Amino acid sequence: MDDRAIGVFDSGVGGLTAVKELRAQMPGEDIVYFGDTGRVPYGSRSRATIVKYTRQDVAFLRSRGVKMLIAACGTVSSVAAHVLEEQGMPFAVVLRPTVEAALAATRNRRVGVIGTAATIRSGSYRRELERLSPGVQVFEQSCPLFVPLVESGCLGGDEITALAAERYLSPLRRAGIDTLILGCTHYPVIREAIGRAAGPGVTLIDSGRETARYAARLLGGLGLLHAPGHRGTCRFFVSDHIEDFSSVAGIYLGGAAALDVEYVDIDRFPAE
Amino acid sequence: MDDRAIGVFDSGVGGLTAVKELRAQMPGEDIVYFGDTGRVPYGSRSRATIVKYTRQDVAFLRSRGVKMLIAACGTVSSVAAHVLEEQGMPFAVVLRPTVEAALAATRNRRVGVIGTAATIRSGSYRRELERLSPGVQVFEQSCPLFVPLVESGCLGGDEITALAAERYLSPLRRAGIDTLILGCTHYPVIREAIGRAAGPGVTLIDSGRETARYAARLLGGLGLLHAPGHRGTCRFFVSDHIEDFSSVAGIYLGGAAALDVEYVDIDRFPAE
Repeated sequence: MDDRAIGVFDSGVGGLTAVKELRAQMPGEDIVYFGDTGRVPYGSRSRATIVKYTRQDVAFLRSRGVKMLIAACGTVSSVAAHVLEEQGMPFAVVLRPTVEAALAATRNRRVGVIGTAATIRSGSYRRELERLSPGVQVFEQSCPLFVPLVESGCLGGDEITALAAERYLSPLRRAGIDTLILGCTHYPVIREAIGRAAGPGVTLIDSGRETARYAARLLGGLGLLHAPGHRGTCRFFVSDHIEDFSSVAGIYLGGAAALDVEYVDIDRFPAE
Repeated sequence: MDDRAIGVFDSGVGGLTAVKELRAQMPGEDIVYFGDTGRVPYGSRSRATIVKYTRQDVAFLRSRGVKMLIAACGTVSSVAAHVLEEQGMPFAVVLRPTVEAALAATRNRRVGVIGTAATIRSGSYRRELERLSPGVQVFEQSCPLFVPLVESGCLGGDEITALAAERYLSPLRRAGIDTLILGCTHYPVIREAIGRAAGPGVTLIDSGRETARYAARLLGGLGLLHAPGHRGTCRFFVSDHIEDFSSVAGIYLGGAAALDVEYVDIDRFPAE
């Protein structure tokens, strides 16, 4: 058993959808979350910048003495997973568990992937899908407006969000996919709009949820879960306005409660 | 006369619309442009973060030996103009010249202002309009999707851009404005969509253009223009991918040409 916290990070608030799932899967675990709200979005940036930011995010979480690192960010998982691998401690990125869930779900072996520009440009989901299941057909689409839409409060029922979803998803619908990977942890917030645009009968795979399941299996398997009888806590750290974070966090966590949020000057953490 | 370059900066590429205007007004001037593409957008961030970034941007331009500083960014102009004031050298922010042009244009004294969340939250345009012309009626609207739309390539004729413009502008149209300040240097790129949504007979005031005019008057008045017979050059510096910048810069500069672009690690410049 290990009573230290699980460290989770994301480019901003999207990773909170993974926190919600982690709490559902492992209610006894403490969580330290870092949301890089001062440098969001990651998905439109270059690989070198994303790697640098990831090193700093990981350095911060390590400074808090966590027992495991989770990149709850599709972009980091796609282009900077090696930074987590190099730390010599348990870690999870959203890529592998999400791909496994998609391959378990698909019947016609036509799988769609949506994500940020950096995630899709990296080709990471395509490579992992084809590696684990040669012959699977992969249809990718970057959705650069989804994160700004969600962060601007244009949620499920919004007309602009619906129009953007229709534009991004119609090529995948025409390609006949039966399974769609939501390769960005922001996307579950607009899951309904995405599902409508993807068409009936398409299974949506939530990368945050699959990663939480994987993390629970991993910690359980390693004997590193918290001692029983504990009610897990969450501490949140952000690199910009605490108030802005607190006011929107409820949308992602699926419930409004007073949050324990602190500011961190992420530029002070080493990038090398 | 002063043969040093003019230093211009913006959170990303939007300020290039001001560079285009500067080149039209002062073809003999050299320009050093810094676009903080690694940390864009500024408009959704807190005041403290924007001030910090502005200090670093100014420190970089000063390291290049410029004779004047121009913040070609509505957000910086609204919340961090004091950083430029403190430098003890000629400077311009988009706010004052833009407000003066709007007051010269309005007939019914009902002026609309659109900008990023940070610009509108700051109330800077309202204060300056009311200070220079007590009794003027000001109608403000933040347009958080416009910068992501422009940066995603959803330009003038795009259906999503038109829908967003209609949502943001219809309250100002109903308020009966006859003059509209484009308080963000990205917006001239989608000027047509904004004009259509604002309704007929509304004069659009381009903050980059007005600031370029002001800068030309100021340098001329101070006797600091470049010696005659020189054809001005432009050097561009960015804090992320050079390629991404080069590929979109033409949209803003109004012409495609090979650009002289270099990367700069902006985190290395002091914020204090």
